[in-house]
Amino acid sequence: MTISDPKPPASRNETGIAEASELLEGKFGERFSFNSSLRDQHCHTTTWLAGQRPDAVFFPRSTAEVSELVSICSEHRVPIVPFGAGTSLEGHVNAPLGGISVDFSQMNDLRAVNNDDFDCVVEPGLTRMELNSELRETGLFFPIDPGANASIGGMASTRASGTNSVRYGTMKDNVLALEVVTADGSIIRTGTRARKSSAGYDLTRLFIGAEGTLGIITELTLRLHGIPEAVSAASCCFADVDSACRAVIESIQFGVPMARIELLDELTVRAVNGYSKLSLPESPLLLLEFHGSSKGVEEQAETVGEICAEHGGSRFDWTTKPEERTRLWQARHDAYWAALSLRPGTSGLSTDACVPISRLAECVAAARDKACEFGFIAPIVGHVGDGNFHVLLLVDTENSREVELADRYIAWLAELAIQVDGTCTGEHGIGQGKINLLEREMSGSTECMSMIKRALDPLNIMNPGKILRIG
Amino acid sequence: MTISDPKPPASRNETGIAEASELLEGKFGERFSFNSSLRDQHCHTTTWLAGQRPDAVFFPRSTAEVSELVSICSEHRVPIVPFGAGTSLEGHVNAPLGGISVDFSQMNDLRAVNNDDFDCVVEPGLTRMELNSELRETGLFFPIDPGANASIGGMASTRASGTNSVRYGTMKDNVLALEVVTADGSIIRTGTRARKSSAGYDLTRLFIGAEGTLGIITELTLRLHGIPEAVSAASCCFADVDSACRAVIESIQFGVPMARIELLDELTVRAVNGYSKLSLPESPLLLLEFHGSSKGVEEQAETVGEICAEHGGSRFDWTTKPEERTRLWQARHDAYWAALSLRPGTSGLSTDACVPISRLAECVAAARDKACEFGFIAPIVGHVGDGNFHVLLLVDTENSREVELADRYIAWLAELAIQVDGTCTGEHGIGQGKINLLEREMSGSTECMSMIKRALDPLNIMNPGKILRIG
Repeated sequence: MTISDPKPPASRNETGIAEASELLEGKFGERFSFNSSLRDQHCHTTTWLAGQRPDAVFFPRSTAEVSELVSICSEHRVPIVPFGAGTSLEGHVNAPLGGISVDFSQMNDLRAVNNDDFDCVVEPGLTRMELNSELRETGLFFPIDPGANASIGGMASTRASGTNSVRYGTMKDNVLALEVVTADGSIIRTGTRARKSSAGYDLTRLFIGAEGTLGIITELTLRLHGIPEAVSAASCCFADVDSACRAVIESIQFGVPMARIELLDELTVRAVNGYSKLSLPESPLLLLEFHGSSKGVEEQAETVGEICAEHGGSRFDWTTKPEERTRLWQARHDAYWAALSLRPGTSGLSTDACVPISRLAECVAAARDKACEFGFIAPIVGHVGDGNFHVLLLVDTENSREVELADRYIAWLAELAIQVDGTCTGEHGIGQGKINLLEREMSGSTECMSMIKRALDPLNIMNPGKILRIG
Repeated sequence: MTISDPKPPASRNETGIAEASELLEGKFGERFSFNSSLRDQHCHTTTWLAGQRPDAVFFPRSTAEVSELVSICSEHRVPIVPFGAGTSLEGHVNAPLGGISVDFSQMNDLRAVNNDDFDCVVEPGLTRMELNSELRETGLFFPIDPGANASIGGMASTRASGTNSVRYGTMKDNVLALEVVTADGSIIRTGTRARKSSAGYDLTRLFIGAEGTLGIITELTLRLHGIPEAVSAASCCFADVDSACRAVIESIQFGVPMARIELLDELTVRAVNGYSKLSLPESPLLLLEFHGSSKGVEEQAETVGEICAEHGGSRFDWTTKPEERTRLWQARHDAYWAALSLRPGTSGLSTDACVPISRLAECVAAARDKACEFGFIAPIVGHVGDGNFHVLLLVDTENSREVELADRYIAWLAELAIQVDGTCTGEHGIGQGKINLLEREMSGSTECMSMIKRALDPLNIMNPGKILRIG
């Protein structure tokens, strides 16, 4: 199986799909749709994986409706593909065996906010920006920021993280409990609002990152954090990626609780300069953000500034002024669009890997060299504090030779990460795109995962063909 | 089933145990022992749950040996009970169906420390104090502190935490990867040294807290933290528990990153005064610890001091001097022994519950009132930042009426926690003692747990009768 050519369906259950669809249409009316362009939209992925359409799209409004849907689909052996905001990158929303796409956009309520407990309860279709907008008056916020305005349910399902996980953790660290509809239509709760628990198997963490293959998340209890009293941002240029990484490692060893530590490689900086009319030196750039008290962020910035200087960092600028912070971070936010402008008309294929931080610099260097060898324009950005980095391959997806090369490059990068005791994906997930890489990375453990999958979803109707091979 | 009377074995597999034991003795010689007092020691629990002896005790020296053991036990259907330091509280090391206790005291190496990556690799028998002692020169430490000098493998298996999890998280947050021997003797790895991953199901978190019922942990890759530049400690007296909790909630809302927040109730303070010759006012006491830079801990202490004063806190003392810090914390460390002195000759039955922090004060008050009603002397301590608290029932375990009352009290406390959306155990685990309470708390989810158990351990040989009912 090549990444660009997901394994074709073992078999579509035509009869089951037809029977279930008729029942479901009768039950849910216009919220159960066979509309062709709607079906197209629901298998749109931001990778070059070919779209595989669902047979229908359902817009549930309650957990009870999801449970009803699953019961009927279970009876008729019809695949179910949960759909949040459609921003996942590895073909998670494709329907290789057809079936029903379950779009949670009408289940997007913020059900409760418990200020004193720093938690809230949300429906899975709520997006992270909507959530933070609704939370604004409370002084609390939900920190996970994967870039895209993803849905909270989707972020949990892919175990998303992003720029500030070095300080606040990933989805696995910020979900207290889930309500899940399991493969037989049962509704279970995986936890409580207690901050910690040692009550039985950690089902919360099992469903987080399971990409909808074990059950459908219908409600999430989230940890929230206090909006920091002060936020400061800083940027610093380095002669090479290694010096930048050394400075970060030393800052962490020094105990500076940095909130974001983003690396832009030379090529990304060049792209951003052109795109955003900036004149940053074309060298590796660190962007940093500090959260804390007014005095605290000042001290953090000073400490990191000194450490950066020791590692040859130049132009260490820091500020607490919101407008200047925004300007500093604009470069990072624009990086994706800026990078695309390096080769107009191509698609940006973003792949990720995560390695021990001590190996990050060499891996970034090797990734850049290999991209040159393959003839790719491929800017690199990294969440340095986690050892997580993204290579954006600018690929003409109409050119099968380029697609094949991209495929080979991604496999090579995953192998590199695995060789240094890292992982083939730090935050994008496995989906369809990395099934063979997961098998390479986890070897014996994928059999253990399959045993769990077969136990919890014996009919293989929950998002089949993601994480694990079909059948 | 009452807590004091664990369900008797469904059936002991006498033939299998005899056959496997003979094979194992031949293979491992004196490291496979039938010694009677050794067997007694290996079912010693610090609860009043009756001990249930294993048939033999095995001291493995390698993962390969554990795998060999499991293969033989699997073939002969013999239960395996992993044993770390024997400090668990809910009968985790009991052998209700007999079988082999696997004592990891000879697998206690610190295999690797990766300074730049803030991680290390350990064998499961290493205790947390041994680990931190070996790490001292590196400037790093492993933060989880459950009180007892538990083994790291045991701490992972019970999802332990303790006094500083409000800052550093629990075992689930500080283990990067595990090596596990599964029920058929296979050896799997659940992760890499990458700080984060979205590669497939989170098997690491599944085995953490599984109490050895799904597999045996044979190696752990741990996250480490930099020893803070400065540590300061503070104490403050309050008129009531509610004021103390309000001060803590406000301090967290203010963004103060407190490292420890311990509550001692009036009765505990009285006990400590007597035991440690102190003269603390007999009222609820908060003990706090701050980690950070020199300026940072000063600022934190000042901020919290002001907030405490607003909530009627008196005698807010803080210090960065190690000897004074030790003196302040001595009260907390002595609390268990001091409490026992309140009723000499009795056993201290420690139970725990964890609730949303906004409900902590009322739950502590209710727990105290109910203890009085039942006639118990029952000091209470709490990890306030997590909403986790412990009631220490001083029970004459020879008195069956008292034991029955303790049983009822614990069930009542769990019900109280569940009613306020908390959990029946924040850090002690389920073991044998809380199986019925887990069923009450998780209802539908225990069936899901059972499906996973049956899938990964179809013969029910991995620590049977813990977390879930036997058979």
